[in-house]
Amino acid sequence: MNKSGKIRKSDATRARIIEAARERFRKEGFERTTIRKVAGDAGIDPSMVMRYFESKRGLFAAAMTVELRIPDLSGHPRDKLGEALVSHFLKRWEESEDDSLQLLLRSTASNEDAAERARAIFREQIVTTVARLRGDAEAGEVAALIGTQMIGLAYARYILKLPPLLAMPRQAIVRRIGATIQRYLTEPLVADQDISDQPSGWRKPGSIE
Amino acid sequence: MNKSGKIRKSDATRARIIEAARERFRKEGFERTTIRKVAGDAGIDPSMVMRYFESKRGLFAAAMTVELRIPDLSGHPRDKLGEALVSHFLKRWEESEDDSLQLLLRSTASNEDAAERARAIFREQIVTTVARLRGDAEAGEVAALIGTQMIGLAYARYILKLPPLLAMPRQAIVRRIGATIQRYLTEPLVADQDISDQPSGWRKPGSIE
Repeated sequence: MNKSGKIRKSDATRARIIEAARERFRKEGFERTTIRKVAGDAGIDPSMVMRYFESKRGLFAAAMTVELRIPDLSGHPRDKLGEALVSHFLKRWEESEDDSLQLLLRSTASNEDAAERARAIFREQIVTTVARLRGDAEAGEVAALIGTQMIGLAYARYILKLPPLLAMPRQAIVRRIGATIQRYLTEPLVADQDISDQPSGWRKPGSIE
Repeated sequence: MNKSGKIRKSDATRARIIEAARERFRKEGFERTTIRKVAGDAGIDPSMVMRYFESKRGLFAAAMTVELRIPDLSGHPRDKLGEALVSHFLKRWEESEDDSLQLLLRSTASNEDAAERARAIFREQIVTTVARLRGDAEAGEVAALIGTQMIGLAYARYILKLPPLLAMPRQAIVRRIGATIQRYLTEPLVADQDISDQPSGWRKPGSIE
C-alpha cells in the first residue's frame, strides 16, 4: 500500500470511530459512554481509539466538530444573502444524512466541552463568513446577532418542535427569518455609545419609522 | 389556624418542595433525582411529596413551570413593543432571583417532559400575549417567529455564552433584537400561498428594497 492509500485507510478508520462515538453519545450521553464501548461498536481495539483521540474528551470534541458548509456567497445578489443563508441552514438541518448538528446543539445544554466546540464553530465558520461578506469591523457582533436567530430557529423547530413553526413551509421561513438575517448582515450597527441618542438601534435611511 | 392560614401553609410547603426539586434536577438531572432525595432536602416526608405531586414526573412538570410575567403592554407605544418585550425578557433572565428559565431551557435539550412544559408556556403565555397585541389571526405563527428569536437570544447569551453577545450592552441588545421582534409582531405576514409571487416575505409599504 502506498502512502496515500495509508492515509485513506486511516481517514476511514477515524470516520468509523467518530460515527460510532456519535451514536453512543447520542444514546447514552457523555457520562455513560466509554472508549471501550465505542471501540466495540466500531470493531476496533480500544488502544486504537486512544491513539487517534487520546481521551474520551478528545473523542467527544472530534464527534462534536460540525462543518456548516456555508457556501461561497460572494457573487450572490446582495439583497438576497439573508434568504440564501436561511435556505442553506434549513437544508443542512433537514436534508443532511448526518445529524451531527442536532447532537451538538442538544449536548451544549449540559456539557461545557460541547459548548466550547459550538463557540469554536461560531468563531471559525460564522464570524469568518460574516467578515467575508461585510468586512472585519463588527463581524463578531453581527455574527452573534445572526447566531441568536439561527440557533433559536434550530432550537424551536428541531428540539422544542413548536407546532406553528413545524407547520410553517420551508419557503415561508426562508422569507421571514431571511429578512431578519438580511438586516443583521447588511444594515450598519449603531455604535454602542450612540445608542442612547438614537431613535432606533438601526440606521435605516429612507425607511418609514 | 383558620382556612386561609392552612392554604398559606400548604402553599409554602409546595414552594419549599419545588425549590428543593429544582436544585436537585439542576445538579443531578432527571434520571438521578429521586422523590426521597427531594423530600430529604425539603425536610419533609416522601409521602407528602407524593401527595402534592403524585410522581417524579409530576414533580418535574411543576418544577419546570415558569411564569414569564409578561407585562400588560396594551397602553404601550405601538412602535416600541419589540424593545419593551426584549427589555422585559433580559431583566427576567438577568435580575430574577430564580433561575427556573435557565433550568427549563437546559432540560428541554434532553427531556421530552421539559419540552412539553416549554410548549405549554409558549401556548399559554407567548401566543396569548401576541393575540392580545395583534389579534388572534396568525397569533401562533407570529408567536413562533418571536419565539425563535427570543429562545436563540437566551441560548446564545446564557448557555453558549458567545463572547461578542456577552460583551454587548443590554441596551444595544434591546435596540437590535427589539427591532426584529417589532417586525415579527406588527408587520403583516404574507399568506403562504402568496409567497412564491412576492419579492419579499414581508410587505413593507414605503420601505426601500
